[in-house]
Amino acid sequence: MSQLSYAVVGTGAIGGYYGAKMARLGREVHFLLHSDYEYVREHGLCVCSCDGDFALPQVNAYGDASAMPKVDVVLVGLKSTNQHLLRTLLPPLLHENTLVVLIQNGIGLEADVQEWFPGQPLAAGLAFICSSKTEPGIINHQCYGSINLGNYSCRSASLFEAVLNDFIEAGIDAHEVNYAEARWKKAVWNMPFNGMTVALQTQTDKLLKHPATRQLIYDQMMEVIGAANVLGIDTIDESFAQKMMQMTDDMVPYSPSMRLDYDFRRPMEIHYIYSRPIAEARAVGFEMPRLEMLERELMFMEKEYLGH
Amino acid sequence: MSQLSYAVVGTGAIGGYYGAKMARLGREVHFLLHSDYEYVREHGLCVCSCDGDFALPQVNAYGDASAMPKVDVVLVGLKSTNQHLLRTLLPPLLHENTLVVLIQNGIGLEADVQEWFPGQPLAAGLAFICSSKTEPGIINHQCYGSINLGNYSCRSASLFEAVLNDFIEAGIDAHEVNYAEARWKKAVWNMPFNGMTVALQTQTDKLLKHPATRQLIYDQMMEVIGAANVLGIDTIDESFAQKMMQMTDDMVPYSPSMRLDYDFRRPMEIHYIYSRPIAEARAVGFEMPRLEMLERELMFMEKEYLGH
Repeated sequence: MSQLSYAVVGTGAIGGYYGAKMARLGREVHFLLHSDYEYVREHGLCVCSCDGDFALPQVNAYGDASAMPKVDVVLVGLKSTNQHLLRTLLPPLLHENTLVVLIQNGIGLEADVQEWFPGQPLAAGLAFICSSKTEPGIINHQCYGSINLGNYSCRSASLFEAVLNDFIEAGIDAHEVNYAEARWKKAVWNMPFNGMTVALQTQTDKLLKHPATRQLIYDQMMEVIGAANVLGIDTIDESFAQKMMQMTDDMVPYSPSMRLDYDFRRPMEIHYIYSRPIAEARAVGFEMPRLEMLERELMFMEKEYLGH
Repeated sequence: MSQLSYAVVGTGAIGGYYGAKMARLGREVHFLLHSDYEYVREHGLCVCSCDGDFALPQVNAYGDASAMPKVDVVLVGLKSTNQHLLRTLLPPLLHENTLVVLIQNGIGLEADVQEWFPGQPLAAGLAFICSSKTEPGIINHQCYGSINLGNYSCRSASLFEAVLNDFIEAGIDAHEVNYAEARWKKAVWNMPFNGMTVALQTQTDKLLKHPATRQLIYDQMMEVIGAANVLGIDTIDESFAQKMMQMTDDMVPYSPSMRLDYDFRRPMEIHYIYSRPIAEARAVGFEMPRLEMLERELMFMEKEYLGH
């Protein structure tokens, strides 16, 4: 297989980071930008990274998806609050076998994109990374950086493997994982911590320090695990919740992406992080009362305090 | 029966109001005061009321319970966060047949006081009143004012009835109610609205305006009703939740007492309004996940933001 070409849709903290790593490796990468298109077209991208900084003075920057070429792989780093935009952003980039990798948080993302693009090969990209973009063209990569790829509907094993190998060659800790298990495992951490840091205006460490919220976080994790089990994912159990608690105890005090979205008054990813998994569980008769309550508190806060 | 004598323990917005009405009726009333003792001893009490203002320029004011006489009836208007103080405040006021009326919010109040004072006649006073005390000696009575009395352990029907009649003679809408049913009916309103207005820093009207929180409030009410049912109180059902929703829709935007406590950085009545009913329900195998989550959020906020 010849070298794969890439497009990055949503060149933010996540998409921008992985795209920049691919470009640095020498892959052909086309970046779709929004607010900082002009800046990046002129100055390129810069990654300030815990693993060493690097600059890409010249990148293929686009302000309009319709001007972009068809590619072999699309890395989607869009906020899922803009998921509907993919219906118009993706078509110019896709040939029949283009693999679309959704590097996003939540449940139900691939199902929606598949409905919009039947037959298109899709994969989930589960990033474990602390990264932010606070200035035009500058990606701040604080720590971690691994990515797990879960195959959703890619029938070409060689294509999937080639993408995985590109990530590895680019210096990224990348592994293939079971799609559904990986999405739900990530939800075990994401569902409690994203919303609770917003609802209580705090960070991960404080939630775990107070016995009352520590138990609540654990109970919420067990709701996610219960839902996953009922949905047929039997590889996640209590020990995984304990592991996530321990891992978070060992982390620096952390504000998850939803807390940052709230603080910067951006819409929150309530639909894919909460509403969809809650609906999937309910469809098979499993209730998640604590996480549904959190979803409702977040909906209230978004309407009442962010005005979205 | 000769005229009853009264003591008011906790001469605040509630205890002060009902005690002042009794004093105005001509009953002997002894008021235990704390922060505004000096002021009230000199200037008496003033009730600014939607039903007409009245002043009591001279009242029996005490700064120390041990200086008070024994009485026939004690009206307890203490914040339940200070409930433990009753162990030392009550003994000087009690003879064997003194009826102690707990005009407080929550579940389990009478059980604790009974444990501390075995055999003492107790009753619950369920006040439906909007009232506040913002200045020394001044009680602002905005609206409502009725009280329901539930007999907990008073074996003298004539004493209980005499107290009820005193409330009525004092111009208060007062009724006898079933103790357990009344406490749990009050919890149907109190448990959702007290905590949710704190957790989301809002008022009753906003919680009901947003569909997400409107449903949550309803679900929380149904948790209280479910607990009451399992505890053998079979007279409360869904229609009562609907009635409470409707009643709150018809109210002016309202900040319940817990919201005011939070705003004034006072300890919140989490124990008797949340922890006790949750524990009572759990003891008979009924879980209240949404209200337990709310309890835990409030515990976090109290520690983290009020520093109690």
